[in-house]
Amino acid sequence: MDYANASPDAVRKLIRENKLIAQTSGMCNGYAQANMAILPKDLAFDFLLFCQRNKKPCPILDVTDAGSPIPHLTAPDADLRYDIPKYRIYRHGEMTDEVTDIEKYWQNDLVAFLLGCSFSFESPMLDAGLELRHITDNHNVPMYKTNIDCVPAGVFHGPMVVSMRPMKPADAIRAVQITTRMPYVHGAPIHIGDPEAIGIKDINKPDFGDASVIRDGEVPVFWACGVTPQSIAMTTKPPLMITHAPGHMFITDVLNSQLSIM
Amino acid sequence: MDYANASPDAVRKLIRENKLIAQTSGMCNGYAQANMAILPKDLAFDFLLFCQRNKKPCPILDVTDAGSPIPHLTAPDADLRYDIPKYRIYRHGEMTDEVTDIEKYWQNDLVAFLLGCSFSFESPMLDAGLELRHITDNHNVPMYKTNIDCVPAGVFHGPMVVSMRPMKPADAIRAVQITTRMPYVHGAPIHIGDPEAIGIKDINKPDFGDASVIRDGEVPVFWACGVTPQSIAMTTKPPLMITHAPGHMFITDVLNSQLSIM
Repeated sequence: MDYANASPDAVRKLIRENKLIAQTSGMCNGYAQANMAILPKDLAFDFLLFCQRNKKPCPILDVTDAGSPIPHLTAPDADLRYDIPKYRIYRHGEMTDEVTDIEKYWQNDLVAFLLGCSFSFESPMLDAGLELRHITDNHNVPMYKTNIDCVPAGVFHGPMVVSMRPMKPADAIRAVQITTRMPYVHGAPIHIGDPEAIGIKDINKPDFGDASVIRDGEVPVFWACGVTPQSIAMTTKPPLMITHAPGHMFITDVLNSQLSIM
Repeated sequence: MDYANASPDAVRKLIRENKLIAQTSGMCNGYAQANMAILPKDLAFDFLLFCQRNKKPCPILDVTDAGSPIPHLTAPDADLRYDIPKYRIYRHGEMTDEVTDIEKYWQNDLVAFLLGCSFSFESPMLDAGLELRHITDNHNVPMYKTNIDCVPAGVFHGPMVVSMRPMKPADAIRAVQITTRMPYVHGAPIHIGDPEAIGIKDINKPDFGDASVIRDGEVPVFWACGVTPQSIAMTTKPPLMITHAPGHMFITDVLNSQLSIM
């Protein structure tokens, strides 16, 4: 199957049947992919409020009703218990299992959060002819913990994680314009230039992902990153938390262009 | 005092001391005013999710921690028990009191929601030279219940309420451009033209507010309206719900321009 041009429905079917267990980058071109975090209902209000207060790192695409694995807004025919290629199970902040479905872990009090992912705003940047170094060089985008505190909500608090893409200044300006149109998936950058100004000591040593080369005449451009909410949820050591495995995202029926305001 | 050019802090102080009990339209030019709804914490998750799922009619500016009357994000020096000119108390969906402070009604499980208000997007339209008929003619904006269902969340469900402003087509196009920049306060219109297409039987008989004259060559332009969340919360007949009295809004420290993405 040509995954790049397949429909989300067709690819999710293969994933559901365990015929496709792989990272989802590059699949279903044009459709938004999502980070997932599942938490018990008694933590869900605080987590929803945390996401609401920190829209840039935590752009909510969908929240299921307690006990329901169906993401009605973004893929009403999907089932979040089966339709992600690989899941991670965390008990009290420790990873205890990695599985291809979560049927045996499902509980009636679980709420699933689907959060926007940077693939959605990278797509229009590529369409506009901007180079994205980590894609050119075929490695994971570099991500850093910053000294920027998220706005706390209930038990959830901690620093913002950012992703970085090196660009020539003119391309950085264009990137601001393009990502500004996408306030529901991270939006405009949160910083351009000096990494130390946001608490990053060594730009060549990312906390997550792989380092990108910054060439002469380029500046680092930083966006709020969807790793933030998972990283922060984990610090509260919830009794049960389920996430997608890195790179193994949920593919929605929503077009990236539907997440753009113009 | 020149209320139009006074600071939010100065005007809130007068309101807190009961020296100013009036509608807030036209006060503190440039600053965002907010609708308010206070609900018990056990309804707050569903209500927050409802607002999240229906961003256009329910644009959240701030949500207080349970039991705290302080809107930390939008006016950290304010106190929502005193700083609104007039409040309405509802018990099981029936209005039981209208008061100038809610000290005696405050409970440790209450959560206050501040929601964006159309003043914020009318201000840049006026700056751009567009005529807003209800302001020219000095009446309340006309509002209508539509046949557009909001996305339900838990106990909350019901139709979207819209506000209407008549405009010449070229002005309507400009209005789309201007309000698109403000996704956090209602954003772009949800409909232009034929009222019946969204279930409005008689454009001259609004469900709330006053009718606006539509002149030859003008089209009605409809925006999602902040009356929606209050109207929907009320239908669930919560044991206690507190709102601002119509037109008596909460004045925040946030500039309207800060709510614009460009």
